[in-house]
Amino acid sequence: MILSKKIKEAVDRLASLPGIGPRQAIRLAFFLSRSGREFSGHLSEAIRSLGETKVCESCFFIHENNSSSENFCEICSDTSRLGNIIALVEKETDLLSLEKTGKFKGRYLVLGDLKKNGVLGNEERRRIEIFKNRVKNSSSGKLEEIILALSPTSFGDFNASMLEKELSGLAKKITRLGRGIPTGGEIEFADEETLSHALENRS
Amino acid sequence: MILSKKIKEAVDRLASLPGIGPRQAIRLAFFLSRSGREFSGHLSEAIRSLGETKVCESCFFIHENNSSSENFCEICSDTSRLGNIIALVEKETDLLSLEKTGKFKGRYLVLGDLKKNGVLGNEERRRIEIFKNRVKNSSSGKLEEIILALSPTSFGDFNASMLEKELSGLAKKITRLGRGIPTGGEIEFADEETLSHALENRS
Repeated sequence: MILSKKIKEAVDRLASLPGIGPRQAIRLAFFLSRSGREFSGHLSEAIRSLGETKVCESCFFIHENNSSSENFCEICSDTSRLGNIIALVEKETDLLSLEKTGKFKGRYLVLGDLKKNGVLGNEERRRIEIFKNRVKNSSSGKLEEIILALSPTSFGDFNASMLEKELSGLAKKITRLGRGIPTGGEIEFADEETLSHALENRS
Repeated sequence: MILSKKIKEAVDRLASLPGIGPRQAIRLAFFLSRSGREFSGHLSEAIRSLGETKVCESCFFIHENNSSSENFCEICSDTSRLGNIIALVEKETDLLSLEKTGKFKGRYLVLGDLKKNGVLGNEERRRIEIFKNRVKNSSSGKLEEIILALSPTSFGDFNASMLEKELSGLAKKITRLGRGIPTGGEIEFADEETLSHALENRS
């Protein structure tokens, strides 16, 4: 094959990223080769410095908050946020989406991608245990509320019921995000389950 | 916004790559943050070294052939390849696809992505001029054949006829890749134009 060693190496590395297939990896590698030293240098540096971000010891969100002596993210360091209401999310991007609403004043627990078999992986298990111990050792020993902010898909529902058992007793109530017709959605095209929830949750 | 500076920077850089949107860029940045120093370090290094690849002075393919004193790629340095049959391709990946057939013994001209308005951009114009001059200054002054290996889309056809005029006189014949039913394709589902070509090119 006439692909040079550097290109091959880059294609392999790029193709190992989620959502990037071998074809796109080849296209990206040639694009970067064509774009020259400065462009690829900037991207390279930006990616390298991602390796230096930190994981919050409390909620496991990725951050680079250097102001606190401990390894807490900005949200967990923010004393105006309610520590007794926790939204459990799978991904960092889910946390960002909830933050964008500006309506949530509690804190988070980023659990990591949940498997589809309803069993927690090692890292998710570790995070849950740390979270449980923290709650149990807190002054009240119990949270006000845990919001299981998982997507309302069948896997999300499945994992939510598993997590509800896992976390029972840790909070006065365990809730999920409300279901209904999304803003801009039309009743005509809403499925029966969505409409049933919309009827139940009417306000 | 609670995105850290490093993540923001990486998201911007990743989103500037072709085929990667802002959402995927955020997902990739978090994935890389989670993957740790070693993973992002390897990817970073692979991308940085892409900036050090070279462009062949003859066919403009990207390479890192260090054996020749001049900046020629492996194909252009290979004296067993026919220098008087040139396949003109848009992208490096098109060259790779043709090479994979193992059937082409000529050389290439990588022109770069052609615009949809039938006008050559600056870089493509420069490459065409260098190519023309090289052919004119060669001993024979004329090539045996130029294959316009552009995809048979309507834009490809349009650009091919533009290039045919541009390159006329440079080669004894200017051809395009054969059209017909692709291997594995069914006659029933072939469009009329494809079938017409298949009838004409029957063998």
